[in-house]
Order: sequence, then C-alpha cells, then structure tokens
Amino acid sequence: ARTGIPEAILAEGKDPAAVADIFANYLERDEQLIATRVTDAIVDALGELMPELHYFPDARIVATQMPEPAESRHTVMVISAGALDRRVAEETAVTCQLLRNPVDRVFDVGVAGLTRFATELDRFDKAGIIIVCAGMDGALPSVVGGLAVQPVIAVPTSVGYGASFGGVAPLLTMLNSCSPGTAVMNIDNGFGAAVLATKMNQLACRTA
Amino acid sequence: ARTGIPEAILAEGKDPAAVADIFANYLERDEQLIATRVTDAIVDALGELMPELHYFPDARIVATQMPEPAESRHTVMVISAGALDRRVAEETAVTCQLLRNPVDRVFDVGVAGLTRFATELDRFDKAGIIIVCAGMDGALPSVVGGLAVQPVIAVPTSVGYGASFGGVAPLLTMLNSCSPGTAVMNIDNGFGAAVLATKMNQLACRTA
Amino acid sequence: ARTGIPEAILAEGKDPAAVADIFANYLERDEQLIATRVTDAIVDALGELMPELHYFPDARIVATQMPEPAESRHTVMVISAGALDRRVAEETAVTCQLLRNPVDRVFDVGVAGLTRFATELDRFDKAGIIIVCAGMDGALPSVVGGLAVQPVIAVPTSVGYGASFGGVAPLLTMLNSCSPGTAVMNIDNGFGAAVLATKMNQLACRTA
Amino acid sequence: ARTGIPEAILAEGKDPAAVADIFANYLERDEQLIATRVTDAIVDALGELMPELHYFPDARIVATQMPEPAESRHTVMVISAGALDRRVAEETAVTCQLLRNPVDRVFDVGVAGLTRFATELDRFDKAGIIIVCAGMDGALPSVVGGLAVQPVIAVPTSVGYGASFGGVAPLLTMLNSCSPGTAVMNIDNGFGAAVLATKMNQLACRTA
Amino acid sequence: ARTGIPEAILAEGKDPAAVADIFANYLERDEQLIATRVTDAIVDALGELMPELHYFPDARIVATQMPEPAESRHTVMVISAGALDRRVAEETAVTCQLLRNPVDRVFDVGVAGLTRFATELDRFDKAGIIIVCAGMDGALPSVVGGLAVQPVIAVPTSVGYGASFGGVAPLLTMLNSCSPGTAVMNIDNGFGAAVLATKMNQLACRTA
Amino acid sequence: ARTGIPEAILAEGKDPAAVADIFANYLERDEQLIATRVTDAIVDALGELMPELHYFPDARIVATQMPEPAESRHTVMVISAGALDRRVAEETAVTCQLLRNPVDRVFDVGVAGLTRFATELDRFDKAGIIIVCAGMDGALPSVVGGLAVQPVIAVPTSVGYGASFGGVAPLLTMLNSCSPGTAVMNIDNGFGAAVLATKMNQLACRTA
Amino acid sequence: ARTGIPEAILAEGKDPAAVADIFANYLERDEQLIATRVTDAIVDALGELMPELHYFPDARIVATQMPEPAESRHTVMVISAGALDRRVAEETAVTCQLLRNPVDRVFDVGVAGLTRFATELDRFDKAGIIIVCAGMDGALPSVVGGLAVQPVIAVPTSVGYGASFGGVAPLLTMLNSCSPGTAVMNIDNGFGAAVLATKMNQLACRTA
Amino acid sequence: ARTGIPEAILAEGKDPAAVADIFANYLERDEQLIATRVTDAIVDALGELMPELHYFPDARIVATQMPEPAESRHTVMVISAGALDRRVAEETAVTCQLLRNPVDRVFDVGVAGLTRFATELDRFDKAGIIIVCAGMDGALPSVVGGLAVQPVIAVPTSVGYGASFGGVAPLLTMLNSCSPGTAVMNIDNGFGAAVLATKMNQLACRTA
Ligand SMILES: Nc1ncnc2c1ncn2[C@@H]1O[C@H](COP(=O)(O)O)[C@@H](O)[C@H]1O
Ligand SMILES: Nc1ncnc2c1ncn2[C@@H]1O[C@H](COP(=O)(O)O)[C@@H](O)[C@H]1O
Ligand SMILES: Nc1ncnc2c1ncn2[C@@H]1O[C@H](COP(=O)(O)O)[C@@H](O)[C@H]1O
Ligand SMILES: Nc1ncnc2c1ncn2[C@@H]1O[C@H](COP(=O)(O)O)[C@@H](O)[C@H]1O
Ligand SMILES: [Mg+2]
Ligand SMILES: [Mg+2]
Ligand SMILES: [Mg+2]
Ligand SMILES: [Mg+2]
Ligand SMILES: [Mg+2]
Ligand SMILES: [Mg+2]
Ligand SMILES: [Mg+2]
Ligand SMILES: [Mg+2]
Repeated sequence: ARTGIPEAILAEGKDPAAVADIFANYLERDEQLIATRVTDAIVDALGELMPELHYFPDARIVATQMPEPAESRHTVMVISAGALDRRVAEETAVTCQLLRNPVDRVFDVGVAGLTRFATELDRFDKAGIIIVCAGMDGALPSVVGGLAVQPVIAVPTSVGYGASFGGVAPLLTMLNSCSPGTAVMNIDNGFGAAVLATKMNQLACRTA
Repeated sequence: ARTGIPEAILAEGKDPAAVADIFANYLERDEQLIATRVTDAIVDALGELMPELHYFPDARIVATQMPEPAESRHTVMVISAGALDRRVAEETAVTCQLLRNPVDRVFDVGVAGLTRFATELDRFDKAGIIIVCAGMDGALPSVVGGLAVQPVIAVPTSVGYGASFGGVAPLLTMLNSCSPGTAVMNIDNGFGAAVLATKMNQLACRTA
Repeated sequence: ARTGIPEAILAEGKDPAAVADIFANYLERDEQLIATRVTDAIVDALGELMPELHYFPDARIVATQMPEPAESRHTVMVISAGALDRRVAEETAVTCQLLRNPVDRVFDVGVAGLTRFATELDRFDKAGIIIVCAGMDGALPSVVGGLAVQPVIAVPTSVGYGASFGGVAPLLTMLNSCSPGTAVMNIDNGFGAAVLATKMNQLACRTA
Repeated sequence: ARTGIPEAILAEGKDPAAVADIFANYLERDEQLIATRVTDAIVDALGELMPELHYFPDARIVATQMPEPAESRHTVMVISAGALDRRVAEETAVTCQLLRNPVDRVFDVGVAGLTRFATELDRFDKAGIIIVCAGMDGALPSVVGGLAVQPVIAVPTSVGYGASFGGVAPLLTMLNSCSPGTAVMNIDNGFGAAVLATKMNQLACRTA
Repeated sequence: ARTGIPEAILAEGKDPAAVADIFANYLERDEQLIATRVTDAIVDALGELMPELHYFPDARIVATQMPEPAESRHTVMVISAGALDRRVAEETAVTCQLLRNPVDRVFDVGVAGLTRFATELDRFDKAGIIIVCAGMDGALPSVVGGLAVQPVIAVPTSVGYGASFGGVAPLLTMLNSCSPGTAVMNIDNGFGAAVLATKMNQLACRTA
Repeated sequence: ARTGIPEAILAEGKDPAAVADIFANYLERDEQLIATRVTDAIVDALGELMPELHYFPDARIVATQMPEPAESRHTVMVISAGALDRRVAEETAVTCQLLRNPVDRVFDVGVAGLTRFATELDRFDKAGIIIVCAGMDGALPSVVGGLAVQPVIAVPTSVGYGASFGGVAPLLTMLNSCSPGTAVMNIDNGFGAAVLATKMNQLACRTA
Repeated sequence: ARTGIPEAILAEGKDPAAVADIFANYLERDEQLIATRVTDAIVDALGELMPELHYFPDARIVATQMPEPAESRHTVMVISAGALDRRVAEETAVTCQLLRNPVDRVFDVGVAGLTRFATELDRFDKAGIIIVCAGMDGALPSVVGGLAVQPVIAVPTSVGYGASFGGVAPLLTMLNSCSPGTAVMNIDNGFGAAVLATKMNQLACRTA
Repeated sequence: ARTGIPEAILAEGKDPAAVADIFANYLERDEQLIATRVTDAIVDALGELMPELHYFPDARIVATQMPEPAESRHTVMVISAGALDRRVAEETAVTCQLLRNPVDRVFDVGVAGLTRFATELDRFDKAGIIIVCAGMDGALPSVVGGLAVQPVIAVPTSVGYGASFGGVAPLLTMLNSCSPGTAVMNIDNGFGAAVLATKMNQLACRTA
C-alpha cells in the first residue's frame, strides 16, 4: 500500500474459509500477509497452508513470511507490566519482527516492583523506541516516560476487573500521562503500536 | 460524635452568616470546629471572629482550635505530585494537624521525576502513614505503594484537562492500583484522607 | 517484598500448569503464596499439591500456609450486606486470616434490616478495623461509618443488576459516603481490603 | 388538565416578561399557577403582581394561590439528609402544600447521625407518605425504606463534588436501593416528588 | 417485616439447594415467600415442593401462597410496550397479585401504535394505579402520564440493542419524563414496581 | 460547494472581526452566506453590514440573502415539544427557509398534551417532511413517527436538567425510537436537520 | 400501517414457534411480513413455511414476499467500510429491496483506501440516496457526505474492539460529522436506515 | 532533564507571580523554559520580562528562547481541520519550533472538503512527520493516515458541541482509526504531540 506497511487483517469474526483463501492468494504471489487475532477455527482452516505459514500461538498471529530485521533499524523494546499483559505484548513484539524491526522483550516489569526495572536501565538505553503494554492502573508508561529519551508508545490492555472497565482505566491513565509526548493506542492494540514504531524506524532511515 | 472526630462542615455553598453563627457557637463552647472549602465571602463573614479563629488560606480551612499533635501518634507523610495538586495536599495536611497528627509535607514529587523521589526514601521510611495527592495520570500512589510498608491513602485531584474528566482518570488509576491495599478517596477529598489517617493513628494507640 | 505482604497472585486467566509450577516452587521454599480467584481448572491442576495446600472454596483462595494470628493484632470485623455479597466477604475474611489477623464475620446485615445490626453493636465495638462488603446501593458502609470509631474499609461488589452497572453504583455511593474517612477499594476487591487492614494492624504494632 | 394537577412552569431559562404575562393571565382567571426555579430576574419581573402572588424564596417558587390542605389527605413527611439538600427539600415541601397536602418537615437527618433519626420514629409513623431528599451517597432512603410501611419517594440532589457527578451517585444509589419499592425521581426534582405524593393522596380519597 | 411486605428473595445466582431449604422452611411455617428470577436449576431443586408451591414460568416467580386480592384495593393496570417487554410485565403483574392487588394486563401497546391505546381509554380510567414497562425509547410512560389522573410507575426494561445500553436509554427517558410525578424503578425491576403499587394501595385503605 | 448547500459557518467562538470580513466578502460576491449561533459581539461587529444582512434574533442566525421557497418543494413542518425547545426549533425553521423550503411551525406540542396534537393531524398530513425538536424525555418523535407517512427528523435539545445530561437523554430516546426510520441529529443541531430536509426536497425534484 | 411501511418484527429473543405462527398468518393473508435478526432456531422453526418464504442468510432476514422495485424510485446506494460491516450492510440492502427500492451495493470502501472510492464516483453520482455502514472510527460518512449532493444516512456498526465500545465510537463520529445533514441511526440498525430511505423515495413520488 | 526535552510548565491555574519568578530564574541561567496556556493575567505578570521573552498569542505560549531548527531534522507538518481547531494547531506548531523542528502549517483542511487536500499532496510528501488536529468527528487523521508513509500523530480538540462531549467524540474516532499506527494524544494536547514529534526527529538523528 501507499503507506509502506504490508497488508494485515484482523481475523477474529471472519469466516475461516475466507481467511484461508486470502492466505492462499498471498502465498502464491509471494507477498507478506499478516493475520492478527486468529482463532482456533481459523488456525484449523489454515492447516494445509501451515507448513508454509508462520504461526505464533502466544501472539495469535499468522504470517506468510518471517523476514530478517531491516538494516540500520533501531531496536524496539517491548515492555509488559503484569503477567496477563504478555498476550498483548507478544502481539506487539511479533508484529514488530514481521515489520522488520529488531526487538528486545522485557516482560513482567510492574510499577509495584521498580527495583527490577532499575537494574535494566542499561539495556533500556540501548533501545531506540519503547513500547509499554499495561493494564489495571496503566502507570508503567508514565514511569518509563519520565526516564526515557526515546519515543514511548503506550498500549492499554483489557487486563483487570471492576473499575478497570475493560481497559478504560489504563487508557485514561496513558492519555493523561505526566510524561509528555506519550503516544497512546486503542485498548489491546499491540498491532498498531508496532506499525507506529516501524514508521518511526523508517523515518530514521530517510534523509531529511 | 460517637466516631471520635470533631465536627466539620463543608462550607462551600452555605450561607456565610449561617456559617459565622455556627462558629460563634463553637467558640463559646470552646470546642473544635473545622470548616473546609471556605470561600472569600465566608472568610469575610468570619472577620470579627478571626482573631480567635485559625485560618489556613492555602488549605481553604478555618478552625476554632489549633491543637498540638497527640502523644505517640505516627507521622503522616503528605505527598503531592504536580504543582497544582498542592491545594488538595494542603487541605489534607492542615486537617491532619487539626486532628492532632504530626505531619511531614513532600510536595511536587512527580512520577516523571522519580530521581528526587529516590533521594527522599529515608524520610519516607520514618513516616507511619502515607497520603498521596495526584491528578492527571494519578500514577504516583502506585509507585509509592510498591515501595511502602505503610498504609497508603490515595487522593485523586481534579487537576488536568481533557480526558482527565475532572479527576475521573486518576480516580480509576488509584482504584486499579497494582500496589494492593491502596485506600482510595473521592476526588479532591483531602479532608477524608486526613480523617482516615487519624483513625489509623488512634487504632495504633489502642490495645488490641 | 519490601512492603511486608507475602506474594499473591490473581489466578483467573492464567495457565493452570504455570500456576501449579509457582506453587510447587513456594512449597519447596516453604514460603507463603496466596492465589485468589482460582478457577476449577486451576484447582484441578493443583490437585497433586493439594494435600499440602490450603484451599478455601467459598473464598476461591489457595495458599501454601495457614498461619496463626500474629500477636497483639486487632480483630478485623468483616461485614457483608446481602446474601450474594458473601463471596467477596469470604475472599476478604480468608485473606485477613492468611495475613495473620484475627477475624470476626458478620454476614447478611442489610441496611434494610438495621434492627439486627443494632443488636450486634457490642461485638462491633470490640473490633479494631471494620471492612464492609456491599453491592446494589452500597449504603451499609455509610451507616456503619456513622457509628464507628474504627477505620472503615468499604468494598463495593458487582452484586446487582440494571443500573448497578456491575458495581459502579455501590462504588460511587462509597466514594461519596457522608461518613468521612471511608477507605474505598476497587469493585469486588476483598483481597485489597485485607491488605490494607493488615497494614493498619502492623502500624499499630510499631512504635511511633 | 386531565391529570388533575394544576398548571406548573419551570421558570429558569424563560423570559421574565413572558413569565409575568402568564401570571397576570392566571391571576385574572383566578386559577392556580405554580412557577418553580424562579430566578431573581423573574422575581423582579413579577414585582407588581407580587402583592397578590405567594413567593417562597427558599423553595424558589411563586404561586397564584396558597390553598388549605384538602380534607382526609395523609401527611407527607419531607426528610432531607445534609444541610445543602434543604433547597430541594423546600421545593418539595412547598409544592406539596400548594397541591393541598399536609406537610411535616424533618431536615438534616443524615445517615451518619442515625441516633437523631431513631428519636423521630414516632412522628415518622404518623406520616402517610415519605419523601427523602439526599445528595452525596444518597443512602438515607434505603435506611428509611427499610423501616417504613409507607410509600417512600427518593429525590437525589446535585449536592456533592467529585465522583458524585452532579447527582448521579445518589441517583444510582436510589435506583439500586435494597429497600424494595422506592420511587425514584430525576436529580433535584422535588416538584415531581410532590406531584407523585399528591396523586397517591388523591387515590386514597377515591373508592376502589 | 416492619414494612408490611412479605419476604422475597432474588433467586438468580443463589445456590438451588439453599433456596429449596428456605422454601421448605416457609411452607412449614405457612407463610408467604416469593422468589423472583428463578432459574431452571432452581425450579428443578424445588421440584419436590412444587405440588405445594405456585410457579409462574413467564414471570419466573415461585411463591408459597397465591392469595385472593385484599378488600377495597384499587386495580393495578400493568401496561407493556413491545413484545419482549412482556417478561418484565409478567414479573410485575404476578407480584402485584401475590401482594394481594387486583390486576389488569394491557400488553403490546406501543407508542408507535397509539390508536389501539386510544380504544382502551375506558378500561384505563377504571384503574387506580398504572405501571408501564417499556424498553427501547421508553416513551410510553410519558404518553400514559400525560393522560392519567392515577399515579404512574415506570419500569425501564433491558429490551433493545446498540444505544439502548441495556436499558439505560429508557431509564433516562423515564427520569426526564415530561409527565411530572412519574415514579421510576431500576431497569427490569418489575418486582419493585409491584411493591410500590401495593404500598399505595395499602395507604388508600388507611385513614388519614 | 459540490454538495449543493450554500456556505455556512458556526459563528460561536470565532473572532467577530473575522466573521465580519467573511460577510463583507460574500455580500460583494452577492452569494448566500449563513452564520448560525451568532453572539451579541458578532452581531455588533456586523453592525455596519446589517442593513444589507438578514438577522433572525430568536434563531441566532445572520444571512446575506433571504430567498423565496424553491418551486415544487414540499412543506417542512417544524414541531417543538416544550417552551425552551423553541430556540432550536427557530434555528431549524429559519435555516429551512434560507435553504428555500416552505416551512410550517407547530410549537409547544408536548407529549404530555397529545390532545392538541390530535387536532393538528390535518395540517400534519399536508407536510412533506417533519422535523421534531425535543429535550427532556425526547419522546415526541416516537409519537409523531408512529403516525407519519413522511420522513421524520429528530433533533434532541439540551433542554432539561439532572439526568438529561445536556441532551443525552433525548438523544438516546431518539436513537432507540420504536418508530423505525427516524433520522437523528446531534444535540441542538437544528441546522443539520434543515440541511437534511433540504436534500430530501431536492431529491424529490430530481428524476430517478 | 398508517406509516406505509409493511409490518416488521425483530425476531431475536422471540419464541421460534410464536414467530412461525405470525408468518403462517401473513402468508395466508398474502401480506408482506419482514423478520430481521432471525436466529438459527427461528429459521428451523420456519422450515415448513420456507418454500414459500424468502430467506436471506447474510442479512439474517426472512420475508413473505420479494417485490419488484416500485416505479420511479431512486437507487439507494449501500456502502460499507470494513469487511465485518457487511452484515449490517446486507440487512440494509435486503430491507431496501423488500421495501421496493432499487439498490446498488458498494462494499469494503474503507476510509484508509480512498483511491478505490475515487474510481467509483460516477456510479456514486447515479444514486439518489446513500447509506453508509461503518464501525471502528465511523469516518466514512463524513468523507462521503463532503462530496454528496444526495441525502446521506449513516449506520454505526458494533464492529471494533476496545475503545469502540460496541459501536459508541462510530455513533459519536457520525453525530458530530462535519458534513452537515447526515442522518444517524442506532448502532447496527440497517433496518431503520432502509425505512428512512424508503420514506425519502416515497416523498419523491408525491406532488408537493 | 534526562528525557532531552526542555522544562515546560502548564501555566493555567498557577499564580502569575510564581510563574514570573520561574521565568526570571531561567532567563538568568540562560536556559529554555516554555509556558503553555498562559492566561492574560500571567502575560501581564511577565510584562517586565517581556522584552526578553518570546510571546505567541495565538498559541498562548511564552518561552525564554526561540531557537533555529536543529540540523538534519525532518519537517513536521501540522494540519488542522476546522477554523476553531487553529488554537490547538498553533500550540502544536509553536512548540515544535521551540523544540527545534522545521514546521509546515496546513490549516482548515476539513474532511468535508477533500479536494483542497488532494491539491496539497506534494507538499505532504515532503514532510517527515504529520500532526493532525481535529475536533467534531475527528475523521481527518484517518484520511491522512490512509495515504501517509509518515508517522501520524492525532490531536483531538474540544471543538464541537452536544455529543462531541468536549472532545471525547474525536478522541474515540482517533483511537479507533482504521489507519493503523495512529499515535493519539489527550484532548487539546498540542504540546504533547510536539514533544513526540521531536523525539521521533531526535531518533532519526541517532545511529541505530
Ligand atoms: N472537604 C470535605 N470533603 C468531604 N467531606 C467533608 C469536607 N469537609 C467536611 N466534610 C464532611 O461533610 C459533612 C458536613 O456536611 P453538612 O452537615 O452538610 O455540613 C460532615 O460529615 C463533614 O465531616
Ligand atoms: N449550528 C450548526 N451546527 C452544526 N454545524 C454547523 C452549524 N452551523 C454551521 N455548521 C457547519 O459547520 C461547518 C463550519 O465549520 P467552520 O469551517 O469551522 O466554520 C460547516 O460545515 C457548516 O456547514
Ligand atoms: N433490525 C431492526 N432494528 C430496529 N427495529 C426493528 C428491526 N426489525 C424490526 N424492527 C422494528 O421493531 C418493531 C418490532 O417490535 P415488536 O413488536 O416487539 O416485534 C417494529 O416496529 C419494527 O418495525
Ligand atoms: N499544554 C500542555 N499539555 C500537557 N502537558 C503540558 C502542557 N504544557 C506543559 N506540560 C507538561 O506539564 C508538566 C508541568 O507540570 P507542573 O510541574 O505542574 O508545572 C510538565 O511535565 C510539562 O512537560
Ligand atoms: Mg484491510
Ligand atoms: Mg453535619
Ligand atoms: Mg505479582
Ligand atoms: Mg407546561
Ligand atoms: Mg432479603
Ligand atoms: Mg467551512
Ligand atoms: Mg410490532
Ligand atoms: Mg514540572
């Protein structure tokens, strides 16, 4: 597409046979196609194509190609807060890789345990772009953003209960982050965060 | 009252003359009366009683008595996040003092500048109870609570704009805090936080 | 942890095998581990460890250790309003016990039947801390708080239908309680209430 | 009108001169006209008609006639919770009188001070219909309704701040009241409560 | 109870065996017990008591006794708007009967077909109290209330989709009804409407 | 413009001098320009152009031209519910006229007084398109739509208080209208309703 | 009916046997009956009538008659944005046909791919009325409306996740469309959009 | 600060004298200080420092320094949709300049007038980063994002009325944008958008 991002489909809710048809088509043309939020029924329907496809069960992603990172791209660090935020963090990390970015995963770094966070500061400085996935209070991007020279992308997750309202609580936290310049995504939208990081990385490879 | 907390009135919206009458009454009986959210009109109406009253303009509080801290009470540390959160923090701190607690103020400790926070850890360990007032993302109580052995009381403030929705954003953050056991108050309710801290301190002075 | 509260996990949504691994680990180290909101699948996965574990089906809690109450702790009274609020009240009460507090349960004390409440006033005065779990109108903590010298912790429950909005109605009632100083928790967060009560009790055992 | 309730206008927002014209018209026809929420500008515009009109400043009501209570009507008890709820309670009480009901006012009976409430139980039993006006937590109608054989009408008020959301908190409390059969009105709608009480009283005077 | 209304339980969510125990108890004492929102599992558990119990499947209600209407009670007319509102209307009508009121059902009278409504005006005038159950736009109580000398009780239902938000749309319509004095209930709360109507009818039988 | 609707500006919030400049420009080019929601400051700034401009104070509209109705257009009937809905109804009616539609105003036809409505049925049948402006419960479009062969456009107004939430209550009522096919506009958007009616009328003048 | 639209029922939630009875009745009378949102259970219950009925599985609609387009009606163009919006678009298109309008389907024209849209402009100009079904951001009607001389009807769909809140996001987008005169329907209400388009088309066939 | 962004204060709500003190301090140290949302009172208080300060009235910004764009930075294109969105767009553009980015302003490019937009495509391709400020329907970022290879930052504005809910409508549109990777900011937060763009530009100048 004009936007430079390969075709991607949100598979959930779609007819498994129709999804399989699109994949057959892209395989034949030898082009990248990414499907996020694949259900078991869809994975079953893709069964025969599977040997040729790349399937990432934790991320719930299927793709036609698994490319190498592009040259001179900055590392995208993907941070998750709680154990249950890993699903969104995996969707983010795998999409980053499929869009040809080097990725560094730092999972389970809760606000409530900042000591571990402190010990990772070095690794943190090596990243070019930081994506933080967090549910419940959504406070982690504020803490990261207060220390980061890098662009920070915040992904609220639907992890939580009661007054988290399916991700509204961390979404509002992130929109009101006292770390200015935090880029906010829709709830559970790890895919979008990866696209934005990729566009930042592509910009870094263009001459102004 | 049966609850052991002196009478308090929320002055805003009340008739200044009526408020002055109540104060005259309590002065005469030599009892503690606290008025929060006093407006200029009310302060004017209290003018003649003023030499005998205690007026705290930053906290918008007037009281008949300014007592010494009660014996063997723990220090209540009152922390505020942003510059504009000071108003609520002052309401909190002054009420704590009027209810006979020793108070330690630590203002302007934003999540976005945790380095300063780190340098205060010592002072922090000396407190018995911690109250955190924060608007915008309301993330500070999660950070404090992740490090604190003390009970933490969180007061969301209406500081912010747009999607902070008059304090709803920090309120939800605090209710969903990943630091378990955070006590949450109504938006801007510094008074309530001070009452709760006082009840905790009174408990500490009773024999189980 | 630095906060003095033993490790606890919210089990719901987690992989049963992974939860079982963590439990095996804590059993081996002979340390306290608490899992709340355990599902049937998780209880099944914990089956072989079960003889060594403590399982509280009404509270949906599993723990590695069942300790005695710590010395000189105040009794935590756990009050529930309606019959369906018992689940949250049991999560609260069992967590209080696991965190070493003496507990007194007073269940089914609805606002609509205050006569029963009146007859319990004596028992009520013996408590050091009061936790009230209520859904629907969430009015009970206001009534209790109006009579209590003790700190009151209010837990809104998702019990109700229609305009209770999954617990929002009692949550707002409690945040706006006309009994000042009520500590409010997230909807159905009995665990958090128990942690806060424990921190209050620990404070009572420290010297100011 | 077909409904048996005299004409009433909500004056706020209307042109003072236009309101004055309607009043002149009703005075001439010697019929009852009630205007609620009259502003100072409207009271000024009604100035010349004033000697003939009945003006209730606390209730913000003007009427052409002040009738005697109708025969064999039950007393309507109007209860208010906090000091600031009096405005709505006065709108309620005055409208009840203008619609020919005997009225008993019991103001400032907060949930937080139920002892006073207990001492009024006798007077309470003499009422035929009970209207409760309450802001903040809106818990009072639940308490009253748990004890009352009479129909209870609940009027949430916009008194409060923060998470009271202009009266939403007490409105939800009342809709979810655990005292079944509570009739709920719009926020600050004392007028509507009085109309409903009047229709109940009229029913009591009809033969089934 | 002090309120004169027989004991009633909301059965949904409760343990079937526990519900059966309570019923056995009330049958033995020969007292009225009403269970609303009974599920199939509960009906099964009540199976052995069933010959003695009264079961109303459309209303999802079980009761120990089916009394005659009390003397000199006014007829309660129960109106429903759309076909799917019948469930709530039946809960309302059956509860009215169990609480000893004569009942007249007028179902499927939509605002969109007022002609039918016009032909029922006579029957309508014979009623003493009117209850209107409506989902979607919830407009019917406004139309009925504009014509009715009787007290009108409005029950919003969760019937609808999209922006009806599970009954919020008709709830707001009813709270803002331009027919003053409309008594509003919680969403789907037919039981509460019947209790209120009963209290009105009992009042009509007392001497002022 | 491509859409066939003359240029229109929403004047509120704009710099009066800038608005005057645009008007001078359109006058010079002898083209239609419509400004809605003009404030007093803007009317003052337009003062010198005023003799040439058309000013409709009740509608808060200024225009460069006041055209005759176009040939073979259907009459647009503009109905308003309450007295305070007239402002929006006037914005609607005047815009309809400026966009060259014949207009019939039927104001103050509340749901609560349908008898008057019944007497206007004849006039009603002569209209080609019906626009209904209503606040509070917003029930009138459902009633009109249940009787109308014509397209019905519903405009919720911000008239009301409390749980009308600035027009949200009538907006939801209209979106959930049980009269299918009701076209809904934004709150207070009389201008949009007039544009839609004009497009319908223009369609009627084209050959299919 | 007086409104000129044939009887239609929303089948979802209704008893399959009851729905079958109504269909038998309409078949016998040889009249049009439309059922939307038919479930599998209802389709099964209609099995025996099926040879005579018209069933549109993608639209989830069953009807007794499939009429020809009425004479001199304008074509209704039904546009859908994303792949998942097709369900609502099919309900819209089939209802349009059943109500005797010529229909042109233009599906999968996302805002994010406006180039395809541009190539359809010719076809677009031939339509008399445009209906746009869109979920997620709901931006397509604004784009279409900015180019269209025709009336535009916007149907928000519940397609999306997270902060789309079941269709609230596109609903608000459409209500605030900067293309004035956009007619907005309830979420997923393709049926209503078709009724409105039909009324517009009928108007075009009447003489003013 | 560690984050590489110069100190900035949100001036609104702060004491003018205090703001002036901070400015004097930064002038003395010859460091950059940016104040956004300066009120008239604050501008007055800064009066004496003004000759040395840079004041941007349309952007409501004051700064101590006006630097040249940094070398090899990409141009940030700032697009606004409607006339009233200019204020936020100016805050964005001026902050971008103060943070040393070359800026290209493209204002008043509404979705409803995409023809103008098409003619700017060339200029558009020269930009490195695109920021879109839009109120009402907030649809413009979706359209821009569908065509852009660049990172797109979306700023919802509070421009609009009724169901725009102070910027909630465009905020939700942007969070749900069907153009993947759109970075969303808080309502009216032009400052944050500029910080994010600056961090992207800084990244482009670092070696991966
Ligand atoms: N700033 C405050 N926020 C919340 N509650 C307060 C505040 N100040 C006083 N109160 C409480 O508000 C109640 C006073 O209500 P009233 O009787 O209407 O004056 C008392 O219960 C006080 O303890
Ligand atoms: N009262 C109104 N409500 C909604 N839209 C309006 C109103 N008056 C003018 N408009 C539209 O608002 C837009 C004006 O936006 P602007 O270019 O910012 O002046 C134009 O598309 C008008 O058609
Ligand atoms: N999909 C639909 N969405 C909205 N309304 C519908 C739909 N299908 C049928 N209706 C309308 O819903 C009403 C049917 O209600 P009922 O009488 O309860 O079956 C009729 O007014 C129909 O015109
Ligand atoms: N217009 C603005 N919107 C959002 N944040 C801002 C704005 N202007 C300054 N800030 C940030 O707000 C914070 C200032 O908070 P304070 O310390 O209370 O002055 C700093 O983090 C700034 O970077
Ligand atoms: Mg696609
Ligand atoms: Mg008081
Ligand atoms: Mg943990
Ligand atoms: Mg009137
Ligand atoms: Mg009970
Ligand atoms: Mg314009
Ligand atoms: Mg029907
Ligand atoms: Mg600062």
